[in-house]
Amino acid sequence: MGGTSINSGTIPSKTLRETALYFSGLGQRGLYGVDYTVKADLTVRDFMFREREVVTALRTKVAENFVRHKVTVVPGTGSFEDPHTIRVRSDDHPDRLLRGAVILIATGSRPFRAPEIPFDDRLILDSDSVLRIDRLPRSLAVVGAGVIGCEYASMFSALGIQVTLLGGRDRIVPFLDNEISDRLRLQMELLGTRVRVGTTVERCEPLAGDCVRLFLSDKDTLEVDKVLVAAGRLGNTDGLDLQKVGVTADPRGLIKVNEHYQTAVPHIYAAGDVIGFPALAAVSMEQARVAMCHAFDIKFKSRVSPMLPLAVYTIPEVAMAGETEETCQQKHLPYCVGRSFYANNARGQIIGDLSGEIKLIFSPDDQTLFGVHVIGEIASELIHIGTACLQLGGTLDFFIQTVFNYPTLGEAYKYAAYDGLQNLARYKAGQPPAPPPRPPDERAPR
Amino acid sequence: MGGTSINSGTIPSKTLRETALYFSGLGQRGLYGVDYTVKADLTVRDFMFREREVVTALRTKVAENFVRHKVTVVPGTGSFEDPHTIRVRSDDHPDRLLRGAVILIATGSRPFRAPEIPFDDRLILDSDSVLRIDRLPRSLAVVGAGVIGCEYASMFSALGIQVTLLGGRDRIVPFLDNEISDRLRLQMELLGTRVRVGTTVERCEPLAGDCVRLFLSDKDTLEVDKVLVAAGRLGNTDGLDLQKVGVTADPRGLIKVNEHYQTAVPHIYAAGDVIGFPALAAVSMEQARVAMCHAFDIKFKSRVSPMLPLAVYTIPEVAMAGETEETCQQKHLPYCVGRSFYANNARGQIIGDLSGEIKLIFSPDDQTLFGVHVIGEIASELIHIGTACLQLGGTLDFFIQTVFNYPTLGEAYKYAAYDGLQNLARYKAGQPPAPPPRPPDERAPR
Repeated sequence: MGGTSINSGTIPSKTLRETALYFSGLGQRGLYGVDYTVKADLTVRDFMFREREVVTALRTKVAENFVRHKVTVVPGTGSFEDPHTIRVRSDDHPDRLLRGAVILIATGSRPFRAPEIPFDDRLILDSDSVLRIDRLPRSLAVVGAGVIGCEYASMFSALGIQVTLLGGRDRIVPFLDNEISDRLRLQMELLGTRVRVGTTVERCEPLAGDCVRLFLSDKDTLEVDKVLVAAGRLGNTDGLDLQKVGVTADPRGLIKVNEHYQTAVPHIYAAGDVIGFPALAAVSMEQARVAMCHAFDIKFKSRVSPMLPLAVYTIPEVAMAGETEETCQQKHLPYCVGRSFYANNARGQIIGDLSGEIKLIFSPDDQTLFGVHVIGEIASELIHIGTACLQLGGTLDFFIQTVFNYPTLGEAYKYAAYDGLQNLARYKAGQPPAPPPRPPDERAPR
Repeated sequence: MGGTSINSGTIPSKTLRETALYFSGLGQRGLYGVDYTVKADLTVRDFMFREREVVTALRTKVAENFVRHKVTVVPGTGSFEDPHTIRVRSDDHPDRLLRGAVILIATGSRPFRAPEIPFDDRLILDSDSVLRIDRLPRSLAVVGAGVIGCEYASMFSALGIQVTLLGGRDRIVPFLDNEISDRLRLQMELLGTRVRVGTTVERCEPLAGDCVRLFLSDKDTLEVDKVLVAAGRLGNTDGLDLQKVGVTADPRGLIKVNEHYQTAVPHIYAAGDVIGFPALAAVSMEQARVAMCHAFDIKFKSRVSPMLPLAVYTIPEVAMAGETEETCQQKHLPYCVGRSFYANNARGQIIGDLSGEIKLIFSPDDQTLFGVHVIGEIASELIHIGTACLQLGGTLDFFIQTVFNYPTLGEAYKYAAYDGLQNLARYKAGQPPAPPPRPPDERAPR
C-alpha cells in the first residue's frame, strides 16, 4: 500500500536525503565552517535504517486511513474481466470477481529498463533496486540527469561517494529555468559530483572484481563500482487486460484521459503515474480526487489547479512554478526578472546556506507574476508562497505589501520583488537586463 | 548599526537557537531516536562562536547597504536642537548640527530594568547582558514568559541547563491561541523547562558562592546559578530632548504616531520599537518604508499590511496571523477550527517532528479564513502561506484547491482544511465541536 510514492520512490529517497545530510554534516555546514567529514564507517545499514522506519510508519498510516474510511482492501492482482468487473488473483484464495459502477485505475509506474542494459540489481541498479544495495559503493555512475538521477547523485555525493552523473541533454533537469539548472549543476559539482551532459551510455559491462565498465557516446569509458540507471518510467498497465474493455495504453504503458480523468470508457477513470506527466505524488492525489468528484457528482473539486509546484529534492533543493525564462522566450512573452540570494538574507546567514536564490519572472506591463524559481534549503516549502501569488493572479506588489517574519528565508521574496522593480526600471529605460549576478558563495565546500 | 535586531536581539537569539539545536542533537531527533546528548564540554565560547560571526556578517551588510545607497553615516549621539536640527555629540569630534526637512526617529528600545531587581550583568542578567555571559550556568531562572523569555528558556533547556520559567500571567506567550500556548508549554516541559505561571518575583538576592535566591509571589524561594529577566522593554527616547520640539514619549519611552507614522510634529516621523507594539523587526522595517513614502510622496507603499505574521523562535517554533479562538469569542464571532498534525504528514515523519500542528480558524458562514496558527519546525516560514490567504480574503477553499509539493510540511494546510470541513459539518448539524485531539506524540524527549 502506498505505491511508489511511499514504498520505493518519493518517501524513501527523501528520507535517505535527510540521512545523507545528517551523516555528511552538510546540515550544519553554516555553523561549523567547511568541516564536511562523513562518518567514516558508514554502512548501508546505518544509511537505510531511518528509511525503513519512515516507510513502515507511512504505510501503516495508509492502512489506518482505509480502515477509518471503511475501505475494503482485497489483496491480489487485478485485471479487467469486463468493463464493470475486476478479476482478482491471489496465491492463497480462489479468484474473486469485483463489480463496480465506477473503476479508477491507479496502478502507478515502475522504472523503465532499457533492453541494452544488463540489470542485475547488484552492480547495475534501477531506482527500485538501489534501495536494496548490499554495501555503499566507492564510486557510482548515475545514468539519466532528470529528477530521480539528480536526487540520487547528490545524496550519494554528500556521503562522499565518487559520483558521475551522465545526462543525454545539454542540461540537468532540463525543464528547470536554465539559470537555476546551471546553479544546481554548480552546487552539485561543489559537492563532488562529476556532471557529464550531452553524453549517453551505449553499452554497460559487468567486469570481474565487482565493478562495471560503461561505454559512452563520446567514445570514453568509465569504470565504477555500481551503476544506477534512472531513465524514465513505464505505466503499470500490462497485466490489466485493458484490451478487453476498450481502454488502450501507449508503448510506455500510459493511459490517455480527458480533463475529468476519464479514459475512453467513461466510467473507467485513471490517475497518477499511469497517465504520465507530471507523475508527482501531490498531483496524482489531486487527480484522483477530481476524478472521483466527477464520477460521483460531488461539488468539491472540479479540476487540478493549473498552477502546479514542482520540487526536486536534490542537495540543494529546487522548486518552481509557472514560466521559466525559456518558456517566456518560446511564447514571445516579454518578461522581467527579480532575484534575491539567501546570502543576503538573515536566516540564510544563520543556517549557513549562502548559495540559495529566489527568482521571480513577471510581466513588464502590469507586473503580473509569471513564474517563481527557488534553489536552496526548504525550496520545496518556500515555493508555495509563490504558487499562492500565481494562483491568485497576483503581481510583484503582493510580495512588496506582504510582511514576512524576520528572520525567515521567505523574506527573500520581498527583496526579489525589489530587485525586480530595479530591473523593470532598466527595461523601461530601454537598457538591456543586468546579467544574473554571480552567486555570492561559490567556494568549494570540500 | 543594525540596532537591537542585529546586535542584541533578533539575530543573536535566533543564531543561538540554531546552535543550541545543533549541540543538543535536537535537529536530528527524528533520525536517531531519543538520543539527546548535549556535547559534554560545551563552553560559552562554543555556544557564542557562531553568533558573533553572523552578527558581524549582517552588520557589515547593513554598512554596505548604506554605502550602496549613498547614505552618509554620522557616528555619535543625537538629540533635537530644534524641530529641524539634530545635534550630534561624539568623543572625537566637536558637536555637529544636522538639518533635515524630514526627521525619522528609529532609536529602538532596550530591556526594562525593574528597580527592585539588582542587575549585575553577571548573575542577574537582562536580554542584552545574557549575550556576554562568562560561563554556561547549571541552572537558570527566566523571569517573564513572553516571547523573549520563552525563546531563551527553550534554547538553554535544549543545552541541558535546568531552566525555570516564571510568568505572571496564567499562560506563556499570552497573545497566542490558548491551545497553541498550551502545546508550546507542554513541548518546553518535555524539553526539560520547569514552567511556573501565575508567579512573579518579589525579590532577588545574590548569594555567596555565585548563585541567586529568588523570592516568589507564592512564598516559595528558588536558588539558581543565574537569572535572566525578560520583562518588557523601554523606548530609547530619554536622551533625545524631545520636549524641545513638542514630541512626547510615554513613561515607557514610547512615542505616539498616526497611521502615517507621523509624531505630533508632522515632519518628524517615528518607526520601530520606539513606537511600541508589535516591535518586530519585519514590521518595523515596513513602518519606516511607509513613513518615508508618506514624507516624500512616493507612490510605493501607503500602509503596513494589517495581516501581520508573528513568530516566536522557541523550540519548537510558533507562528500566527489573524484571530485566535479567544479573540473570536471576545468579538462574538462564530468560528470553526481545522487542525492537522505533522505526525500525520510525510515530511513531518521524515524530519521526525511529530508534535507540530497547523490550526485554521474560519467562518462557518462562508469559510473565510480568520486566523492561522502553526507550531513546529519552520512555523515562522509556513505561516506565510496562511498570511497570503488571509491577506487576499481567501477561504478554506484556497487550501483545498492548491497543490502542495509532496512531501512538504506545507501540505499539512490542505489536511487542516479537510479537517475544518468535517468540523463545519458537525457545526451545521448542531453538534458541539470535537475537542482538540491529544497531540500524536507527547512522549518525553529526554
